[in-house]
Amino acid sequence: MDPKQPEELPLAPWRRRLHEIIFEADTPGGKTFDVGLFLLIGISLLVVILESVAAIRSEFGDQLLQMEWIITILFSIEYVLRLISVGRPMSYALSFFGIVDLLSVLPTYASLVFTGAHSLLVIRVLRLLRIFRVLKLGRYVGESEQLWQALTASRRKISVFLFAVLTIVVVVGASMYVIEGEEHGFSSIPTAMYWAIVTMTTVGYGEITPQTPLGRSLAAVLMILGYGIIAVPTGIVTAELTDIGRGHLNTQSCPSCAREGHSPDAVFCRHCGSQL
Amino acid sequence: MDPKQPEELPLAPWRRRLHEIIFEADTPGGKTFDVGLFLLIGISLLVVILESVAAIRSEFGDQLLQMEWIITILFSIEYVLRLISVGRPMSYALSFFGIVDLLSVLPTYASLVFTGAHSLLVIRVLRLLRIFRVLKLGRYVGESEQLWQALTASRRKISVFLFAVLTIVVVVGASMYVIEGEEHGFSSIPTAMYWAIVTMTTVGYGEITPQTPLGRSLAAVLMILGYGIIAVPTGIVTAELTDIGRGHLNTQSCPSCAREGHSPDAVFCRHCGSQL
Amino acid sequence: MDPKQPEELPLAPWRRRLHEIIFEADTPGGKTFDVGLFLLIGISLLVVILESVAAIRSEFGDQLLQMEWIITILFSIEYVLRLISVGRPMSYALSFFGIVDLLSVLPTYASLVFTGAHSLLVIRVLRLLRIFRVLKLGRYVGESEQLWQALTASRRKISVFLFAVLTIVVVVGASMYVIEGEEHGFSSIPTAMYWAIVTMTTVGYGEITPQTPLGRSLAAVLMILGYGIIAVPTGIVTAELTDIGRGHLNTQSCPSCAREGHSPDAVFCRHCGSQL
Amino acid sequence: MDPKQPEELPLAPWRRRLHEIIFEADTPGGKTFDVGLFLLIGISLLVVILESVAAIRSEFGDQLLQMEWIITILFSIEYVLRLISVGRPMSYALSFFGIVDLLSVLPTYASLVFTGAHSLLVIRVLRLLRIFRVLKLGRYVGESEQLWQALTASRRKISVFLFAVLTIVVVVGASMYVIEGEEHGFSSIPTAMYWAIVTMTTVGYGEITPQTPLGRSLAAVLMILGYGIIAVPTGIVTAELTDIGRGHLNTQSCPSCAREGHSPDAVFCRHCGSQL
Repeated sequence: MDPKQPEELPLAPWRRRLHEIIFEADTPGGKTFDVGLFLLIGISLLVVILESVAAIRSEFGDQLLQMEWIITILFSIEYVLRLISVGRPMSYALSFFGIVDLLSVLPTYASLVFTGAHSLLVIRVLRLLRIFRVLKLGRYVGESEQLWQALTASRRKISVFLFAVLTIVVVVGASMYVIEGEEHGFSSIPTAMYWAIVTMTTVGYGEITPQTPLGRSLAAVLMILGYGIIAVPTGIVTAELTDIGRGHLNTQSCPSCAREGHSPDAVFCRHCGSQL
Repeated sequence: MDPKQPEELPLAPWRRRLHEIIFEADTPGGKTFDVGLFLLIGISLLVVILESVAAIRSEFGDQLLQMEWIITILFSIEYVLRLISVGRPMSYALSFFGIVDLLSVLPTYASLVFTGAHSLLVIRVLRLLRIFRVLKLGRYVGESEQLWQALTASRRKISVFLFAVLTIVVVVGASMYVIEGEEHGFSSIPTAMYWAIVTMTTVGYGEITPQTPLGRSLAAVLMILGYGIIAVPTGIVTAELTDIGRGHLNTQSCPSCAREGHSPDAVFCRHCGSQL
Repeated sequence: MDPKQPEELPLAPWRRRLHEIIFEADTPGGKTFDVGLFLLIGISLLVVILESVAAIRSEFGDQLLQMEWIITILFSIEYVLRLISVGRPMSYALSFFGIVDLLSVLPTYASLVFTGAHSLLVIRVLRLLRIFRVLKLGRYVGESEQLWQALTASRRKISVFLFAVLTIVVVVGASMYVIEGEEHGFSSIPTAMYWAIVTMTTVGYGEITPQTPLGRSLAAVLMILGYGIIAVPTGIVTAELTDIGRGHLNTQSCPSCAREGHSPDAVFCRHCGSQL
Repeated sequence: MDPKQPEELPLAPWRRRLHEIIFEADTPGGKTFDVGLFLLIGISLLVVILESVAAIRSEFGDQLLQMEWIITILFSIEYVLRLISVGRPMSYALSFFGIVDLLSVLPTYASLVFTGAHSLLVIRVLRLLRIFRVLKLGRYVGESEQLWQALTASRRKISVFLFAVLTIVVVVGASMYVIEGEEHGFSSIPTAMYWAIVTMTTVGYGEITPQTPLGRSLAAVLMILGYGIIAVPTGIVTAELTDIGRGHLNTQSCPSCAREGHSPDAVFCRHCGSQL
C-alpha cells in the first residue's frame, strides 16, 4: 500500500519531476497536487452520495451525470500520469491503491456498454482512503504515529481479547438458538450469533429479543459481560498510550549514574545532571 | 465568546460600576447579579419547556404567556444595560452572546406582529450557555480547567480518531447501500451513513437493520469495531488526565534555559543540565 | 445513614449486649445476627419478586402470603429490638434505615384494613441496601474504600461533566423539538430531552427516532459526541484509581534524602535506605 | 479443568508417549495433535452451525449427516485415547473437559434410538473452549497471562462493582414495576429487572420502554448512571494493566526479608531497609 520507491534506472527528468509532484507530499508541487486531489476526491464522493438520494437524482440527474464524466476523465488522466511517472508501472498497477484507482474509473466507462454497471461507482468511496495521506502533512504525523504505535503495541493483547469475545459469541449464540428457538426469531445459529454480537457490543437493535425467562437471564448475563468487558481493550490501549506519551518505552540509561526512565527528548540525566 | 475588555477610553464612573456588576464574577455586586441572572434563565427555560407540553399549555397557557412577557422585558432591560455598560457596544452586540441575548427577546416581540414567530422562543435555551460562567466561581475553576486542558492537549489525537471514524462510516455506509439496498431501508447513501453512525456508536435504534447474511456480517464487524475503538479516545483522555493530575506537565521552568515540562522528581534540567 | 452511636447515659447491660449484636459487625454475635438478617432480607425480596409474577401468584399465592406474614412479624420484632437497644430511639426511628425498616412492615398490616396497600410491599427492596454492610466485613473493606475514595476525589470533575452533559441534553432536546416536531414523536421538549438522553448515553431504544435529514444529522452529531465523551468520566476515575493504587497521594518525604513518592506501606526510603 | 498430572505409578512407555502427544503442547507430536484437533473442532462447529440454517439443511442435509458421523467417530476415538493415556481415567472422565468430550459425542449415538436427541449436538460448541489451549502456544503466553493477572488482581473491586450494579437493578426494577405497571410492559419484577439491565448496560432493545413522565425520569437517571458508571470497571482494569505493564508488580523479592512488590527503581527494600 506504500507508494513505490523509484527504481534504480534513472528516469527522464520530466518523469522524475512528475513523480515528485504526484508521490511526494512535502514539496510545493506535491502539496498543491495533494490538495487538488483531495478536493476532487471530496467532490466525486459528494456526487456519488447525492446520486443515491432519489429526490436529488430525479431533479439534478443530468448535472450529476455530467460531473461524473468530468471526474472520471480527470481520474483517468491521473491514473495514466501515475503509470508514466513510476519506474515500475506494473507494481503500481497491482498495488492496493493502483487497483482502487482503476476500479473507480471503470464503472463509468462500463455504463456505456452495460446497464447496471453504474451502481459499481460506489467503489469510488475507497479512494477516500487516499485522504489518509493528509495525516502525513505537518503536525499530525507525531499524533497519528503515537496512536498507531499504541494500537500496534497492543495488537496481541487485543487478539486474545477478540478471541475470547468470539468464543463467547459462539457459545451464547448456540445456546440461545436451543433455548429460544425459531419461534422467537433465533432462526439459526448464525442469526443467534448475530444477535449475540448486537447484544454484547451494547448496540441492541431490538428486532430479535429473547422471550423466555431462561433466554432473558442468559441475555442479561451477556449484557453485563459485554458492558464490563469493554474495560479490557480500553485498559490495554490506555496503558500503552500512557507509556508512549511518557516515553517509558525509552530504555536509555544514564552513562554516569545508570538510572533509566528518561523522557525521549532528555539531553541530561535528571538525577545526576551528566550528559546522556 | 469572551466578555469584551473595557476599551482604553475611560467610562463614566456609573458605567464602570455597571460594567463591574454585569461582567465581573468576583465582586459582591457581580455575584449577586450572576445568581439573579442564572435564576431568571432557569425560570425562562422552565417556561419554554412547560409551554411545549400540550396538556400544560392548554391549562396554564395564560399564566405562561404572562411569565414569558415578564421575562422578555427583564431580558430586554439586561440587554440594554449591557449595551450601555461596555465601551464598544457593537463588539458586544456582534459577539456570540450578544446575538443570543438579542435573539432570545425578539420572538416575543415578533409574535405581536407575526403568528408563528412564537415557536422561535426555543432559541432562548442557548442562554443556558451563560450558566457555564458558574464554573468560574470558586472551587470548580481548577477542576474544569484540568478537564479543558486534557481535552485541548488531546484535540489533535481526537481529530485523527474522528477522521478515521468518519472514513469508516462513509466506506461502510456506501457498502451497505449496495449490499442491502432500498428494500431493506437503506434508501440512500446518507441514510446508510446515518445507520452506520447509529451502529458504530452502539446506539442501535433498530428502525433500520440489515437483513441479508452479507449485510449482517459487515454490520457485526462494524459493531465490534465500534465497541473496541472506543478504547482509543478513552485512552487518549485518560493518558492526558493522568499526566496533568500527577504534575507531569508541571510548570516549573529551568532557571537557566527556561524550558518547561520537567517531571516532578527532576533535580537537573534535562535540556541544559543545570540544577533546577 | 450511620447506625447511631450509643448516648452517654449508660444502658442496662442486656441492652448494651443487644446493641452489640444488632449494630456491631465484628463480634461473633453481631456476625451471626448480620448473616441471619441478610438471609431474611434475601428471602423477603424473593417473596416480593415471585409475587409479582402472575403465573406464580395464581398458583402459590397462599404460601407466599404466609411467608410474607412470617417475614413481616420477624421484621417487626427486629424493629422493636432496634428501638429498645439504642440509647436514643427517636434518632434511629427518624434515620433513613429507621424509616425503611418501618415502611417495610407497614404495608402488610395496612393490607388488613385497605385493599391495595399490599402493592406498597415493594418498598421492602430498599432493605436490600442494608446488605451493603457486608462490605464492612473482612477483606472487601480496603477494596470498596479505594473505589469510594476514587469516586469522592473525582466528584467535582464529574459534576462539571454532568453539568456539560445536561446542557447538551437541553439544547439538543429543544432543537430537535423544533426540527422534528410532534408528528415524528418529539411531542414536547421534555420528551425530546428524554430522547436526547436515550441517544447520548448510547442506549437507543428506537421508539422515537428522527426522520428529517436535518434531525438525523443533529442526532448523528449527538451520538458521536456521546460516544466520545464517555472518555471523560472514564479518564477521571482511571486517573484517580491509578494514583490511589500507587499511593501517589502519599506526600511523606524521606527525612534523610528528602525524596517523595514512597508507597504508603514503605518503612524505609527506597532511594537511600534510611528509615522513614 | 487442568489436564491431569500423570500419577506416580509408571505408565507403560507407549501410554506415556500417548499422554505426551495428547496432553502436552510443546513437543512436536503434541503440537501436531493440537493443530489437528483444533481443525477438527472448527469443522465440527461449522457442521453444527450450517445444519441450523434451514436452507442449507434442506439441500445438504445428507452430506452434513455424513460429516457429523465422521466427526463423532473421530471424537470417540480421541475420547478413548484420552482415557487410556491418563493414569487416573476417572478423574479425567469427571473433569469439566472430560464431561464436555463425552457429551459432544453422545447426541449422535442417541439420535439412533431417540428422535430429537440430535438437537443436543449444540453441546459440541463447548469443545470450542479447548481452543483456548492455543493461548499456551508461543508468544501469546505472556500477553494472555498479563490480561489474566490484571483481571485476577481486580476481581474484588469488580465484585464490589457488580454488587452495586445488581442492587441498583433490583431497586430500580421494583420501582419501575410499581410506576409503569403491567399495561406498559413491565409485567412483573423480573421483567422490570431485565429491562433495568437492558437499559443500564446501554443495550436498549426498546421492546419495553417507560411511558409515564415519572418512569421516563427514573429511566433517564438510570441511563446516565449506567453511562457514567462504566468508568469504574474500566478504571480498575486500566490501573492494574498500567501497573503490570510497567513492572510495578515486579517480582523481585528482598534478599533479606523476602517481601515482593518493589517498584522497579527501588534500591533499598522499603520494608527492612536492606539493599536489593
